[in-house]
Amino acid sequence: MTSVDARLRVRYAETDQMGIVYYANYLVWMEVGRVEYCRASGVRYRDMEARDGVRLAVVEAACRYHSPALYDEEVIVRTWIEEANPRMIRFAYEMTEASGGRRLATGETKHVFCGLDGKARKLPEKYRSSFGMS
Amino acid sequence: MTSVDARLRVRYAETDQMGIVYYANYLVWMEVGRVEYCRASGVRYRDMEARDGVRLAVVEAACRYHSPALYDEEVIVRTWIEEANPRMIRFAYEMTEASGGRRLATGETKHVFCGLDGKARKLPEKYRSSFGMS
Amino acid sequence: MTSVDARLRVRYAETDQMGIVYYANYLVWMEVGRVEYCRASGVRYRDMEARDGVRLAVVEAACRYHSPALYDEEVIVRTWIEEANPRMIRFAYEMTEASGGRRLATGETKHVFCGLDGKARKLPEKYRSSFGMS
Amino acid sequence: MTSVDARLRVRYAETDQMGIVYYANYLVWMEVGRVEYCRASGVRYRDMEARDGVRLAVVEAACRYHSPALYDEEVIVRTWIEEANPRMIRFAYEMTEASGGRRLATGETKHVFCGLDGKARKLPEKYRSSFGMS
Repeated sequence: MTSVDARLRVRYAETDQMGIVYYANYLVWMEVGRVEYCRASGVRYRDMEARDGVRLAVVEAACRYHSPALYDEEVIVRTWIEEANPRMIRFAYEMTEASGGRRLATGETKHVFCGLDGKARKLPEKYRSSFGMS
Repeated sequence: MTSVDARLRVRYAETDQMGIVYYANYLVWMEVGRVEYCRASGVRYRDMEARDGVRLAVVEAACRYHSPALYDEEVIVRTWIEEANPRMIRFAYEMTEASGGRRLATGETKHVFCGLDGKARKLPEKYRSSFGMS
Repeated sequence: MTSVDARLRVRYAETDQMGIVYYANYLVWMEVGRVEYCRASGVRYRDMEARDGVRLAVVEAACRYHSPALYDEEVIVRTWIEEANPRMIRFAYEMTEASGGRRLATGETKHVFCGLDGKARKLPEKYRSSFGMS
Repeated sequence: MTSVDARLRVRYAETDQMGIVYYANYLVWMEVGRVEYCRASGVRYRDMEARDGVRLAVVEAACRYHSPALYDEEVIVRTWIEEANPRMIRFAYEMTEASGGRRLATGETKHVFCGLDGKARKLPEKYRSSFGMS
């Protein structure tokens, strides 16, 4: 997997009175991208959590805002893995406006794998190849 | 308990590009009011859920919007119980702007008591008087 | 136009610690449905607001919750017009889980047309047929 | 001004199905802290925007998650300025649980001053001392 694209449309709820998308919502979109990355890699995050009790606990997030996304625009969230091992994973994201290709934001999130109790644990073997771990 | 007042300040995140508070956020404020009502009645909702496995599952919500709340305004959420029995409870809300008394919105929510499994159950005896059930 | 279907996937951000979608988010989904209804009727809400200075100010919203939506489920938001005249419009919604057809929630919103100043105004002639006004 | 503390209580709406606060909400809390910092410094952000047409456009945001915030916990958002000049400002934040002092998250945001048209502009003289610019 090099990268996976997810598409979404900006909701009115996501704008603020500046007339642009509120800055925290880009982190929600990163989550949308991350979930689609997992799905495209053959991992349904919902099942990983429900069946195997494995969660991705976020430990760091960062976003750089290049050009504001506007209401009703279609956005492409491109997601890829920057780094991964059985203890942690780092996703990177690029968000662009779909029709004109305007770059909206870039960012990354770092996660550790943990159990339902919130304690760190290693990612089970069966999921490792999906995340590009050798 | 006749009614309980909670106070909050409008966040930038809660506005939309119309320059007013996005309509779904009033339901979030109702939840803030509900929790404070419970706390003032001697019930910590967090404990009711964690210790006794009782939840308030919402079955209906309604809101009438009178005057839009604006960024940075202080809002009073007045909450009271319209109807309550061991199976269900109905809260009513009035939201006003704190300094001038402008009426922003009124609403109500209806809930049934349920267990952590989502199945309906009766509210345990010990909580009933707090909710004004005789 | 009888009704228009919009599709969305439940985001992690939309769940709460009860493990289900937080109740205010259904109003966000109604907005998604409403926008798609307008688009399918030939009205781009974004343009109506930006070019003609016409907004839909919500005056009432109501939702009945039938079965909780869960993380990662695909949801169909069916939207139709219950009543419309040049001063107001009432939309109705039915939200169902896409794969199994489970009914999640039903609701409605009532709006008045207003200008950018927030004052009531009539819907311009050119938009009326799109909303089924004779 | 060295730093300013704002207080808030975790809302049910802010939790996710992991039973903890959803990661994007910490950026909303940073905004709450930022606004209180401005208010304590004699600047009402609302007025700066409405009267002088000056906005703080976010260009970068970062958050490190130390310990998850839980429903109904009281949170202190401590905010201070890391760097400021008439073109940009960098705020830093530390969020802790109020009763026990558990460190929840730390972060920072970088902003440029801009006009209502979204174009960069210098912060008017009269506001500079409030932000510690000499």
